[in-house]
Amino acid sequence: MIELSQKLMSEFAEGVILPPNDAKQFTYDIYGFSDTPCLFLARPTSTEEVSKLLKFCHAKAIPLVPQGGNTNVCRMAIPTGTTQAGILSLARMNRIEGLDVEAATVTVQAGCVIQTVQDAALDEGLLFAPDWGARGSATVGGAVSTNGGGLNVLRYGTTREQVLGLEVVLPDGRVWNGLRSLTKDNSGYDLKHLFIGAEGSLGVITRIVFRLHSAPTFHRSMMVALSDLTRLTDLMGLARRKAGRLLSAVELLPSLGMKMAFNRYPALKRPFETDAPWCVLIRLSDTGEVENTLLELFEEGLVHGIFTDGVLAQSVAQERNLWEIREQMMPHQYFPDREMLKWDVSVPVSRIANFISQADDLVRSNCPGAIPYAVSHLGDGNVHYSAFANPAEPGFAEMKQRTLQLIDELVWSFGGSVVAEHGVGSLFIDRIRGQKPGVEYELQQALKRLLDPANLMNPGKLISG
Amino acid sequence: MIELSQKLMSEFAEGVILPPNDAKQFTYDIYGFSDTPCLFLARPTSTEEVSKLLKFCHAKAIPLVPQGGNTNVCRMAIPTGTTQAGILSLARMNRIEGLDVEAATVTVQAGCVIQTVQDAALDEGLLFAPDWGARGSATVGGAVSTNGGGLNVLRYGTTREQVLGLEVVLPDGRVWNGLRSLTKDNSGYDLKHLFIGAEGSLGVITRIVFRLHSAPTFHRSMMVALSDLTRLTDLMGLARRKAGRLLSAVELLPSLGMKMAFNRYPALKRPFETDAPWCVLIRLSDTGEVENTLLELFEEGLVHGIFTDGVLAQSVAQERNLWEIREQMMPHQYFPDREMLKWDVSVPVSRIANFISQADDLVRSNCPGAIPYAVSHLGDGNVHYSAFANPAEPGFAEMKQRTLQLIDELVWSFGGSVVAEHGVGSLFIDRIRGQKPGVEYELQQALKRLLDPANLMNPGKLISG
Repeated sequence: MIELSQKLMSEFAEGVILPPNDAKQFTYDIYGFSDTPCLFLARPTSTEEVSKLLKFCHAKAIPLVPQGGNTNVCRMAIPTGTTQAGILSLARMNRIEGLDVEAATVTVQAGCVIQTVQDAALDEGLLFAPDWGARGSATVGGAVSTNGGGLNVLRYGTTREQVLGLEVVLPDGRVWNGLRSLTKDNSGYDLKHLFIGAEGSLGVITRIVFRLHSAPTFHRSMMVALSDLTRLTDLMGLARRKAGRLLSAVELLPSLGMKMAFNRYPALKRPFETDAPWCVLIRLSDTGEVENTLLELFEEGLVHGIFTDGVLAQSVAQERNLWEIREQMMPHQYFPDREMLKWDVSVPVSRIANFISQADDLVRSNCPGAIPYAVSHLGDGNVHYSAFANPAEPGFAEMKQRTLQLIDELVWSFGGSVVAEHGVGSLFIDRIRGQKPGVEYELQQALKRLLDPANLMNPGKLISG
Repeated sequence: MIELSQKLMSEFAEGVILPPNDAKQFTYDIYGFSDTPCLFLARPTSTEEVSKLLKFCHAKAIPLVPQGGNTNVCRMAIPTGTTQAGILSLARMNRIEGLDVEAATVTVQAGCVIQTVQDAALDEGLLFAPDWGARGSATVGGAVSTNGGGLNVLRYGTTREQVLGLEVVLPDGRVWNGLRSLTKDNSGYDLKHLFIGAEGSLGVITRIVFRLHSAPTFHRSMMVALSDLTRLTDLMGLARRKAGRLLSAVELLPSLGMKMAFNRYPALKRPFETDAPWCVLIRLSDTGEVENTLLELFEEGLVHGIFTDGVLAQSVAQERNLWEIREQMMPHQYFPDREMLKWDVSVPVSRIANFISQADDLVRSNCPGAIPYAVSHLGDGNVHYSAFANPAEPGFAEMKQRTLQLIDELVWSFGGSVVAEHGVGSLFIDRIRGQKPGVEYELQQALKRLLDPANLMNPGKLISG
């Protein structure tokens, strides 16, 4: 295998190919997990080099694992299993090629870091919507390949909805230049959607045209105590009716998380004294004032008994404090001697409350002593559901497996997905089978075979052969 | 062929299958054009009947042309060419199956008329975004199959962006139930995008889950005289910066169109006396007041010399009058003895002004005596470009062909599309070839072969085999 990397080194410019020993760090994921050594690390600097590499690997049937910022949590961007593969890092293709202010579009190389694009856009009063915690290291190519969700989905949609055009190197090394920046183009099948969210399994995304948005300059939040979880749908209806497109965040916070945050971070200010089982944090954003709309929303929610208490941020400091509460909810720190079972699921927005209460019942009856926990991006139906289970309970291993399976099935019975925004990777490749009708899985497999018949692109991720 | 329809009639419930003689009207398009008789007309009332029909046709290699409201202008929904086909009308699958107010989603059968869904949504304070002139007869299945554009694209995107889930009957009769209503679901290739905009060439869409939006209740428009076409990009930048997501329409109107409208419809009120070569109609919409933002936009445009004149609607009547001007611009009535060459193109938003002036030059130098004309939905880069040519000119036929070809090439040199929102159908199937790189066309053909190897679904439309 050293021979292979040496052969490749002789084919490419200096620094493009590294041998396995110099590439070990690239085989570890964000949690420090590593499974399989790599054959080599390729760090091309242009589409032409990516194409040349894929042609080489196609001819010799060498699998490749594309990698961006390597911040994925589903073992998507590292070699896994028994297949020996090279790693293709896009990190050196990191330039913004052009920002068209009037058209509000930007053309970017795949290895560019999300925050770099955000900053460049903001300099022009524009907003690049993909945004989540790893913004400082995750790349735009990874964002597109995983259809990243994050903080702005309610207002702007997922990463998919930001993409106007793509350049993709196909598994045989041919380059498809689909770098369009058109909103309206009904001239054939919209191929870009094949590659968005494909986790690198159908080709390598090298360049992207994104749409940008007017950056809102006014933000105002409020936190309210929900009178009862069953009033969630009333709250969402009210928020949508009163605030509509001004809504930029609607976050559901559990009492346990609030308490833990105040205990651990005494600098946080309690927004109100009422100790409600559930609180909701709502933010409106716009290019003009949003205060009056927020006030109307607040008053109407009180009048209709949806909230029992609440507070509107009156200053930037108060605004920051409300969001700090949300950010300081760190469930993995709550019970160090418990095992945290975790789900990143989505269900229809109108069924969130129902889902949480049924999931809680299910956890309590199948996992004695476990403490259920949920936070939710209410606006897009995304529930980060957890249970703090006691590994000292007799029969814990079976109990855990059963609970995982039962919650998955509950999600499906709600028409939901057990893979909401983090992707499938190699971690969920088996678990996802139960979610798809046979026809759909077969169609997916047929698409994979059509584009990558030798299964060379990120094998063992997203879809089984 | 009568035998075939009789055989089918015996297989299905009464009224589902009509013989060719009773189906003639379905072979005519909206312009009264008809090319090829049909083998039969099928009018199923359920997904099961559609599936049964497709299984039958698959076994016997009988092509099918799916048809919704039959309002398409590219010969997409009628049999064309030498292939004998049955017509599959979805018109009797026209029910709204469920409207989830809290989640702001609606599940609809494909044959439901657009306006029916709009009205049902509006009853709940919600907006169904697909909207264009044919709203009273075009169906939602057709809207999805053509990725319909229309009046709301700037604010809400095309029909594609309204679709959350689909049910599709595949060419072999298998049913794919992808009727999800999730915003976040990263569990595999997003198959729905294959069928959206596929013009029925990969399967038959039978049911759809759409997202709905909060219906804006405040609308306010202004019309301004543009100081010069080259200031268009400044105008778009200003509008985006000041009004951002409040923008619901930005329409470019030529002097000729304005004059013709005032001459023909004396009830229309002239918004101002300035006779500018180009005017722009801008509308803001929201769930709250938009007047102040519009006023700021107006004042800043004047201060920077982007407008030379303009007026803000001060009442519902004035608002209506401004839009009436736009709607009474009917270019096909302008010069009855001229031939109107027409394009429905899109170019990047920042290049619209440049495109129009180069296209005008090209028309003037290649088509002596022709009068160029353009209106544009500025916000989404869509230009309805025309030239009123004189068919009495010597060598008119060649002149016309050359002009058509040269404008197509100009569009492509701008990174644009000659098929913006109307679709390809059979009318553009050859002309579109020049727009796509070879790799892209081959990928499209491979997808068509994968899903419809016998070429039974709407043959001769969208893509050649």
